[in-house]
Amino acid sequence: MKYKKEYTLQIKRLLLDVGKEVCELYNTSIRLTEKSPKDYVTSADIIVDDLLKKGLMEICSNVLVYSEEQNTIELSGTQWVIDPIDGTANFILGIPHFAISIAFIEDNTTLAGFVYNPLINELYWTDPWNNSFLNENEIWVSKRNNINEMYGLFGFSANYKNITRYYNEWNELFVNAKKCVGILSPSLSICSVARGKSDFFIDFGCSSEGKIAAAEILRKAGGKLFNYDKSTYSIKTTGILAVNEGKIF
Amino acid sequence: MKYKKEYTLQIKRLLLDVGKEVCELYNTSIRLTEKSPKDYVTSADIIVDDLLKKGLMEICSNVLVYSEEQNTIELSGTQWVIDPIDGTANFILGIPHFAISIAFIEDNTTLAGFVYNPLINELYWTDPWNNSFLNENEIWVSKRNNINEMYGLFGFSANYKNITRYYNEWNELFVNAKKCVGILSPSLSICSVARGKSDFFIDFGCSSEGKIAAAEILRKAGGKLFNYDKSTYSIKTTGILAVNEGKIF
Repeated sequence: MKYKKEYTLQIKRLLLDVGKEVCELYNTSIRLTEKSPKDYVTSADIIVDDLLKKGLMEICSNVLVYSEEQNTIELSGTQWVIDPIDGTANFILGIPHFAISIAFIEDNTTLAGFVYNPLINELYWTDPWNNSFLNENEIWVSKRNNINEMYGLFGFSANYKNITRYYNEWNELFVNAKKCVGILSPSLSICSVARGKSDFFIDFGCSSEGKIAAAEILRKAGGKLFNYDKSTYSIKTTGILAVNEGKIF
Repeated sequence: MKYKKEYTLQIKRLLLDVGKEVCELYNTSIRLTEKSPKDYVTSADIIVDDLLKKGLMEICSNVLVYSEEQNTIELSGTQWVIDPIDGTANFILGIPHFAISIAFIEDNTTLAGFVYNPLINELYWTDPWNNSFLNENEIWVSKRNNINEMYGLFGFSANYKNITRYYNEWNELFVNAKKCVGILSPSLSICSVARGKSDFFIDFGCSSEGKIAAAEILRKAGGKLFNYDKSTYSIKTTGILAVNEGKIF
């Protein structure tokens, strides 16, 4: 195993440092540059991407970094997998719900995961020697397994066709759950299930980078993961189904 | 005018105190009680409602408090108008985007408004002697007035018919704006326009309590307000249209 015990503390320190920068960027005006007509990467994404890559290279120089921004390598082998700002639109719009995500993978298995919302100083993490934690407190999924008692999240999209797809494909969940709310930032949605505030999360569009760290945190917190088509969870597919201990998928 | 200069500082202190309680409640498990089958008031709402009423009575004992919870009086005359937790579902689901809202009204005019997100310590406020501020910094709406450059928010609902209504009634906005995101907590959405992060906000369902303080903050920050049907803004109607300086409504 190439993940070393000291990495965990080093990653936490890196996240605190980079998080301060993210907070400053959040509180100033950011010039936006377009990624595609309806998708945006801010200069903040690029700055954070660079800071994380630099920091991870200092922690261990022989592991490549796979990132959502400026991708040049494939997701495979032994890698750091990062999403500099998961929930960029929230960041832009003044909604304090976005996170820095870092995972360590080896042979298609996630060994460690970190999801950090710097604005509220909430750091979710797990590593090979620990269960899942929110800061210093161990977390566990909720016990609710009757759909009528469950709260859910789904991956909000500004595109009406995408919203309609959720309501069509999961009509029974939407009708029967206590509440199902659409929100950006898959990593934080999965962590909300891991800490027991939400009970399930559905997302057909989230990237590997956005889900990979949080998914391992959820698994170690007692939750269950599937690909969006209900097949066995894979770190390489797009989309995810995440749930507490309930049998709703 | 019955609003006294010293109230502003007193309200800020009250919000900081009550905000600490809200953060504690957020970080513990909350037992939920139902308001209606698909709407929820948590024990946290009730606790915060009581704390605010007690605090406001201490600040000035001769002004009634109008509140979303446990309403027994009408919205009129000289009143404090409070929403103890605007964005309760976010509070439940672990999304750090909810606020305590306090307004002072006299003869159907809002004289002072306070919107406080205690988790990130962001306090938006205005009073008769000041423009609008976020903590100690004066805020102003954005200058973007071309719809193709604008970012918008709309009042998310877990009900698909409600979401469809937005996309049907405001199709041109959704198609042409850079991005339009659905999110809970109207008070914070209106304040996001006031600080220039978002450019407009549409909501057909928000209550007077949820919008009243933020609307005055937006007006004093240079923004424009309308009722949902584009008629002249009134504090008593349900719903709101809020925009920076642009002429999109």
